[in-house]
Amino acid sequence: MAGNTIGNVFRLTTFGESHGSAIGGVVDGCPAGLTLDVDFIQQELNRRRPGYSEGSSPRKEEDIFQIVSGVYLGKSIGTPIAFIISNKDQQPSDYAHLEKTFRPSHADYTYTQKYGIRDPRGGGRSSARETAARVAGGAIAKLLLNSLNVRVQAYVSAIGPIMLAADYRTLTLEKAERSPVRCPDEETALNMISYLETLRSQGDSTGGVITGIISGVPPGWGEPVFDKLQADLAKAMLSINAVKGFEYGSGFAGASMIGSEHNDLFEPRQGNDNSQFIKTRTNYSGGIQGGISNGEDIYFRVAFKPVSTIMKDQISVDEQGHQVLLEGKGRHDICIAPRAVPIVEAMAAITLVDHYLRATFSKI
Amino acid sequence: MAGNTIGNVFRLTTFGESHGSAIGGVVDGCPAGLTLDVDFIQQELNRRRPGYSEGSSPRKEEDIFQIVSGVYLGKSIGTPIAFIISNKDQQPSDYAHLEKTFRPSHADYTYTQKYGIRDPRGGGRSSARETAARVAGGAIAKLLLNSLNVRVQAYVSAIGPIMLAADYRTLTLEKAERSPVRCPDEETALNMISYLETLRSQGDSTGGVITGIISGVPPGWGEPVFDKLQADLAKAMLSINAVKGFEYGSGFAGASMIGSEHNDLFEPRQGNDNSQFIKTRTNYSGGIQGGISNGEDIYFRVAFKPVSTIMKDQISVDEQGHQVLLEGKGRHDICIAPRAVPIVEAMAAITLVDHYLRATFSKI
Amino acid sequence: MAGNTIGNVFRLTTFGESHGSAIGGVVDGCPAGLTLDVDFIQQELNRRRPGYSEGSSPRKEEDIFQIVSGVYLGKSIGTPIAFIISNKDQQPSDYAHLEKTFRPSHADYTYTQKYGIRDPRGGGRSSARETAARVAGGAIAKLLLNSLNVRVQAYVSAIGPIMLAADYRTLTLEKAERSPVRCPDEETALNMISYLETLRSQGDSTGGVITGIISGVPPGWGEPVFDKLQADLAKAMLSINAVKGFEYGSGFAGASMIGSEHNDLFEPRQGNDNSQFIKTRTNYSGGIQGGISNGEDIYFRVAFKPVSTIMKDQISVDEQGHQVLLEGKGRHDICIAPRAVPIVEAMAAITLVDHYLRATFSKI
Amino acid sequence: MAGNTIGNVFRLTTFGESHGSAIGGVVDGCPAGLTLDVDFIQQELNRRRPGYSEGSSPRKEEDIFQIVSGVYLGKSIGTPIAFIISNKDQQPSDYAHLEKTFRPSHADYTYTQKYGIRDPRGGGRSSARETAARVAGGAIAKLLLNSLNVRVQAYVSAIGPIMLAADYRTLTLEKAERSPVRCPDEETALNMISYLETLRSQGDSTGGVITGIISGVPPGWGEPVFDKLQADLAKAMLSINAVKGFEYGSGFAGASMIGSEHNDLFEPRQGNDNSQFIKTRTNYSGGIQGGISNGEDIYFRVAFKPVSTIMKDQISVDEQGHQVLLEGKGRHDICIAPRAVPIVEAMAAITLVDHYLRATFSKI
Repeated sequence: MAGNTIGNVFRLTTFGESHGSAIGGVVDGCPAGLTLDVDFIQQELNRRRPGYSEGSSPRKEEDIFQIVSGVYLGKSIGTPIAFIISNKDQQPSDYAHLEKTFRPSHADYTYTQKYGIRDPRGGGRSSARETAARVAGGAIAKLLLNSLNVRVQAYVSAIGPIMLAADYRTLTLEKAERSPVRCPDEETALNMISYLETLRSQGDSTGGVITGIISGVPPGWGEPVFDKLQADLAKAMLSINAVKGFEYGSGFAGASMIGSEHNDLFEPRQGNDNSQFIKTRTNYSGGIQGGISNGEDIYFRVAFKPVSTIMKDQISVDEQGHQVLLEGKGRHDICIAPRAVPIVEAMAAITLVDHYLRATFSKI
Repeated sequence: MAGNTIGNVFRLTTFGESHGSAIGGVVDGCPAGLTLDVDFIQQELNRRRPGYSEGSSPRKEEDIFQIVSGVYLGKSIGTPIAFIISNKDQQPSDYAHLEKTFRPSHADYTYTQKYGIRDPRGGGRSSARETAARVAGGAIAKLLLNSLNVRVQAYVSAIGPIMLAADYRTLTLEKAERSPVRCPDEETALNMISYLETLRSQGDSTGGVITGIISGVPPGWGEPVFDKLQADLAKAMLSINAVKGFEYGSGFAGASMIGSEHNDLFEPRQGNDNSQFIKTRTNYSGGIQGGISNGEDIYFRVAFKPVSTIMKDQISVDEQGHQVLLEGKGRHDICIAPRAVPIVEAMAAITLVDHYLRATFSKI
Repeated sequence: MAGNTIGNVFRLTTFGESHGSAIGGVVDGCPAGLTLDVDFIQQELNRRRPGYSEGSSPRKEEDIFQIVSGVYLGKSIGTPIAFIISNKDQQPSDYAHLEKTFRPSHADYTYTQKYGIRDPRGGGRSSARETAARVAGGAIAKLLLNSLNVRVQAYVSAIGPIMLAADYRTLTLEKAERSPVRCPDEETALNMISYLETLRSQGDSTGGVITGIISGVPPGWGEPVFDKLQADLAKAMLSINAVKGFEYGSGFAGASMIGSEHNDLFEPRQGNDNSQFIKTRTNYSGGIQGGISNGEDIYFRVAFKPVSTIMKDQISVDEQGHQVLLEGKGRHDICIAPRAVPIVEAMAAITLVDHYLRATFSKI
Repeated sequence: MAGNTIGNVFRLTTFGESHGSAIGGVVDGCPAGLTLDVDFIQQELNRRRPGYSEGSSPRKEEDIFQIVSGVYLGKSIGTPIAFIISNKDQQPSDYAHLEKTFRPSHADYTYTQKYGIRDPRGGGRSSARETAARVAGGAIAKLLLNSLNVRVQAYVSAIGPIMLAADYRTLTLEKAERSPVRCPDEETALNMISYLETLRSQGDSTGGVITGIISGVPPGWGEPVFDKLQADLAKAMLSINAVKGFEYGSGFAGASMIGSEHNDLFEPRQGNDNSQFIKTRTNYSGGIQGGISNGEDIYFRVAFKPVSTIMKDQISVDEQGHQVLLEGKGRHDICIAPRAVPIVEAMAAITLVDHYLRATFSKI
């Protein structure tokens, strides 16, 4: 009810404030027998680290993934997998000047209104640091998806006004990970980096868009009414800090198309082994029809707003309602999108695994 | 788990297939003491009826709202409010030719894959007819919101390529209801109608966009991590048939802005009664910060794909995997957006009421 | 949250007040492909009817089970199975004198305290009439269990001080259904009937005990911590009106045993087909160890308090807090246990089916 | 779904195996502003420690409660309260001989059947060690109940055949905590200790009964259908290891009473401040009517089976299905009841707090 858990069968609960002793999570509902590849999980966490990309904050967080329970001799045993990620870099002094001030477009004001009390150190629970626990939980989900040959990949398709408009099927997605801004097109990536450098010199920030692709999902995942697969994906994405929008398949652009163009015609196909199956000629549906996967790629786009913390002075209001001047200082990302790629993948993976498990009891 | 329920405290469960005896729903968790204005609920249902707008199907459904339980002497008594809407217009013969065929971009194929069995009459459970139960449940939610002075309004801001770009604050929203396409700008509405007429003559369909506004929400509604207010709104919207995208506040456009422009600066204000409160100078945040309402308007946009049923012949595949020709006949809407306005409002209202009730135990 | 739903994967939501237009329910999560034997469901409802046993009320309720959704050509299709049972015998005039009075040991006072409003006709939602919807939902669960060779049976093992102490394994359980008090031992049954006749002449009532047996459950059903199989059974039973206690296996008597006697020793066994399996020599565990079924019979006992409505005058208090005299009149059961047998079975079946479905994703 | 969480608004999730690095829990839904008295929580944990009572195991666990999140400057801030209790005394070598053997009346066999894999060290997740996390979570619930003047108390009312039959209202409950067996009647306590000593010399074990009392609950807590207050209490109690039965109010004894005796007559009363209220003359209802608290004491009894680990050799079966001899050695309690008193209190407190929060939105 307080909303710190996501998923129905595969459930991730996260906990922890930015500058408390640790953050962490509990994965409940992971089937027994899964090999918990801790190196892979750690590697996923490393992908989220600041300092990794051009547009990131200099804070050196070492996010060490530490399993507390649920694993025996390297395998999941069906019990809750709890994990801890210690907060090494606790610098509460940095935030003393913010304790009584509501930063613009942060959660300071709304937390105070809701709870009457808040942890002002680095945004407390509202900090994007919470997403490290999502990445760890998502890595466990990915391990399960791997065993099903389902793959989740994301890349940066826009930073500010610099956009990569190409269809994902024309790109070499593996290149994204080698790019400091996680954009698989090298020329666009250079333009993005150049734009970020300009913003850095101005003390400003920007937003971005991440494109995600889920391939290998068989037909039949998703519940057809309120828990449509796309509905749960949308919720998962909009639950990420700074996300302002989600679209899948044809998305907003599809709204201006006509039906005879947008309809994905079914076609019979024959596999290498002579098996018969059905494909769609186009995939404006984005791999989901009636809330249920149809076997085609699921693809979607997620919009992130500009980072709220900027290196410019801004007016604001303190807890007494007095106007104050907020100095632009401290650590920050110029654009969150590059770091958010593993977060988007994690949330997609968690959503998919949950629906995979839910689909097991659709029929007798 | 099968996903026919939405909400946590205020919960709507819907049931029913398009051509079964009835559809209906159960609202559980409505507080006792609410006056159940049945006329209002019926009026909301009437707003969803086909035949109401230019771009709608000629089927004359009379959706009569009938309360089964949970109301005594006109008031809610805290027990489940069950309701039934009979299916008057059962025409199973219309659908005989579809029984073994998977219509393009419908749910026929995915339901068959998931369940191994399906009700082929009018799409069965996947029919948009299910949304009548949402509108009824949403009407109950609206009655509760009314008592809190919270208002939910939506209008059509695009049909195909015809868009109303104006900021919602410059429009007279009440005009939408008087427009056959539920667009509050008369000139744009005429263009939309003209476009729909062209499509009708071609036997084609199109998509559209609905803009929603929720005003009067006090600060403090929403749970800050996975159940962010925008996350639950996104899920609610993406759970509507044909929706391809959701954005709120600055949305996708916000991704290309810079932080110093996008940040909503707080300002102290004084009410007529000399009370002090805080407002933001701009509202790119869309009334939600850190997943919690901040007292400003919540506004969002929802994209609908073109209607899948068109009056043109299309190739498709039958259950045996053979290519078949699907004739373009039967009933259909040219664009679902005008009829979907009350559905969008209903889903928003249900989400808001649920978070209102959840917010009651945030602090001691 | 308002507690009108039970189950996690197989979920039953009930609705309806005793003297509203109907009661009913929604089963969500029933796998597709189950043959919905409506005659069987109706037969189960008939078993709950008053007038069936000696100790029952003369009201002739005809509980006609009517499916609204979720079934096509006689089979479940994976969508919610909604059903309605009309209230034929609405006699609100009978209850006029109770409208402002709190009947002793009924829910009148607590509902008023909780909701500020109540439906006084026949106890409204608190009436045992609600259990008809449970029996219908339970019948669907039984149909699914039948396909798995799991059998749920219950019988009356005590009415007031008249007890049947014999071990259930020494009884011919089928005899219970032929007994007017649902006791499988004929001599005890006669004593029970005689005791009920005495109470009837005195205008008094009594309580009773029901014993339940679930056979055929394979090892591995149940979740080991909070949702232990026995914990969910206990909740299911205590959620039935008038139930005061639950015990399973050795129960309260087991508390005074010693470990060397109580431990159920494992023994290897060989099946007719030479298969190897494991049995326990005794079954004090009641078929559940660590919250998970072990393949032995699950058996339990449920205690019911005396019926609160009696044909004697009693003092009570009205809504204004004034002492009033409550006349003993109206309809009532002398002992609810015989009619409650199908209710106990229904709640057990719902609990078991839910755990069967949950167990499907315990391991990869 | 995997059942490691209890509660709806106030939710406790526990994690951890007996001999992993730590056990712990996450309390989600605790309202902000509660003073988290860590000394009190630690004191509650100490009450559960072995070595505290005569009938306990010599293992010296030091259960140090360590908060990870959710608390700032000593108060809850509305975010998840995660806590860790390290496992100091990891002795995996003790359990080597049990790795392949199914101990009688333990969960070894059922876990293996369910998960295909298990942590054999000290029972892994099935160990009663998990209940330490419940006691910690329950202590937080107690802190909230204290602020509402609701008190939860439990005591040992039977050990084996030695029973304390007295009505709880005739006892000085505070004496329980000063007794090594947590029995408030000194003479009975001595008999219990004497009986435990006999069993110790025989290498045997026994069961017991705990009586719990919840006082100060106002009318109106509890949801009236499936989530009746007694149903959730029953589930909470039956979820504790070794519990075989639950009864409240008149319980099983009530089943043999007659209605005119069992009905709790309402009476008007006048408070010291001249306020009018309603009391019942008797309290066979056990403080709950129609699933909702009525303002009287809630009292209940919980039966525990004999401890399964005994110091006697027993036959059993190994994973290959071969008969083996299991030596009686290792650590164990003779009777779990004295140590289980704080666990029973914790589960009652969690259940009550959850229903307190749920009751806040019963009416507008």
